[in-house]
Amino acid sequence: MKFELTILGSGSAVPTSNRNSAAQVLNVLERYFLIDCAEGTQHQLRRFHIPYNKINHIFISHLHGDHYFGLIGLLSTLSLQGRKGAMYVYADVRLQEIFDFQMKKMNSRLGYPLIFHPLSRNEEVVYDDKVVKVTSFPLKHRYEAPVCGFCFREKERERTIRRDMAEAWKVPVAFMQHLKRGADFITPEGEVIENARLTMDPPPARSYAYMTDTLFRKQFAEYVEGVDLLYHEATYGKDEECLAKETFHSTAEQAACMARLAGAGRLLLGHFSARYPDPLCLLPEAQAVFPKSFICSDGDVYEVPAVKRNMQEGII
Amino acid sequence: MKFELTILGSGSAVPTSNRNSAAQVLNVLERYFLIDCAEGTQHQLRRFHIPYNKINHIFISHLHGDHYFGLIGLLSTLSLQGRKGAMYVYADVRLQEIFDFQMKKMNSRLGYPLIFHPLSRNEEVVYDDKVVKVTSFPLKHRYEAPVCGFCFREKERERTIRRDMAEAWKVPVAFMQHLKRGADFITPEGEVIENARLTMDPPPARSYAYMTDTLFRKQFAEYVEGVDLLYHEATYGKDEECLAKETFHSTAEQAACMARLAGAGRLLLGHFSARYPDPLCLLPEAQAVFPKSFICSDGDVYEVPAVKRNMQEGII
Repeated sequence: MKFELTILGSGSAVPTSNRNSAAQVLNVLERYFLIDCAEGTQHQLRRFHIPYNKINHIFISHLHGDHYFGLIGLLSTLSLQGRKGAMYVYADVRLQEIFDFQMKKMNSRLGYPLIFHPLSRNEEVVYDDKVVKVTSFPLKHRYEAPVCGFCFREKERERTIRRDMAEAWKVPVAFMQHLKRGADFITPEGEVIENARLTMDPPPARSYAYMTDTLFRKQFAEYVEGVDLLYHEATYGKDEECLAKETFHSTAEQAACMARLAGAGRLLLGHFSARYPDPLCLLPEAQAVFPKSFICSDGDVYEVPAVKRNMQEGII
Repeated sequence: MKFELTILGSGSAVPTSNRNSAAQVLNVLERYFLIDCAEGTQHQLRRFHIPYNKINHIFISHLHGDHYFGLIGLLSTLSLQGRKGAMYVYADVRLQEIFDFQMKKMNSRLGYPLIFHPLSRNEEVVYDDKVVKVTSFPLKHRYEAPVCGFCFREKERERTIRRDMAEAWKVPVAFMQHLKRGADFITPEGEVIENARLTMDPPPARSYAYMTDTLFRKQFAEYVEGVDLLYHEATYGKDEECLAKETFHSTAEQAACMARLAGAGRLLLGHFSARYPDPLCLLPEAQAVFPKSFICSDGDVYEVPAVKRNMQEGII
């Protein structure tokens, strides 16, 4: 029942010797979602032992190279390795144009269907299945085209049946599905047994949101309200607040403000400028606003466990 | 007086955990030539401490992704790092179209001039300065567009003056340049002093050639005649000779045949299929034909020293 994030790249525009540019994988119950795909992402997937042939959905925040230059290489490798299943890419519509043009000029094609879903400037559901729903939402970066954040919310699971009680009240097997959905049980004698006596609450639904690259705008908090885990860019520290504004990026403190406004469980800081060889110096700025802030490194794995949030303290 | 090759990628289409796809740097007297540029080349340049801001010329053999997917990332990084000097790219004309289209769609531009030189299907000089000349020449790969090899030949240097002899014969300073170019000296008394008595032979001019991806064709040997160092693809072993033919690649033995036909000094084998986790198994096949064959690994450095070839034995 995993809900687990692996950081593949925690750096920004220019990769450094220990931080690649943006990419990460979210594993939601063995659904592998790739979020951004900088150059070298396929190398990082291999390095961190992610079964990348299981990735079926790729979300690209925007068309700056440090967020997508690795896409064509990854897609090509999957094709060379014999992939047949469809791959879905959620991105600025122009990424499809770039991809199609490049493949045509190379006189090449993939061995599997590639399906692009163009992202809009509005909040929208881009993926929805029985266990998870993904929304994209607009951020504010210098690029005039859409720059999107993504929010992954697990769906409410069914209630857990208390076998001992169900047996004691002789609930028929055929009624179990109703119990899981919260129905009360009525005995043949007409006695109403409240659902709460026969079942337990399911583990709470988990959630994760990804916000990069962007200026801080307090209204963005509504898109990621109450997420368990929030990844937010912290390209700069407070010392470079003007530069952050000028380049349409955020500071670590602003990332923390977003986490606080949204009521997030934990905050992961990333997308560090190469000017911070050790971005640990940014942590106090964030923690002063939002104590449960953490600095990401390539290869880090963060799990959102299937327990109530107040039991999560100190889990990272 | 370096003439030194650094292997950045010795693998083929799919990068593995210890071999990246095609790229290498040739340093000829502090001119850094980048040859091919697979995804992750900028990471390899950093990893192997190549001063990549000194690269001014990039040669792309052909438009398969494992030979050029890292180009746009490297060019972007150089721009972000403030490069101002022009960069020259020698490649299939369609690479310029791909690059221009992608930059336009991204609404981006480099901060320095990028000058494309389209490669043809004929042997031609593509670069020429006072110390080195580079030719491109056609290979045979399944791609119908040009697939090119490259040959880097150092120019003959001037003769080395024997200071003791020049002083003994009172050669005027103004005449030294003539001596270096081989002229005899005539004393004021009319005596002819042969140049060979006043100078020594310069070190021999060095050369390097790059041949990948290609079928074996004996007529290609003339393009690389007598090179000191030859890099030739050896995607497969003799066990996969049919597959090599089918995919328009060469075996290690065929690479060795090319080295022998060309009268090369040493042969470097690379572009290994991922099916050979340890391509050392290919070496005996090559050495049976051409003893001075070597298996390349990422990060290997091969120097062609400024000495006569018969003094090079056992240098690697």
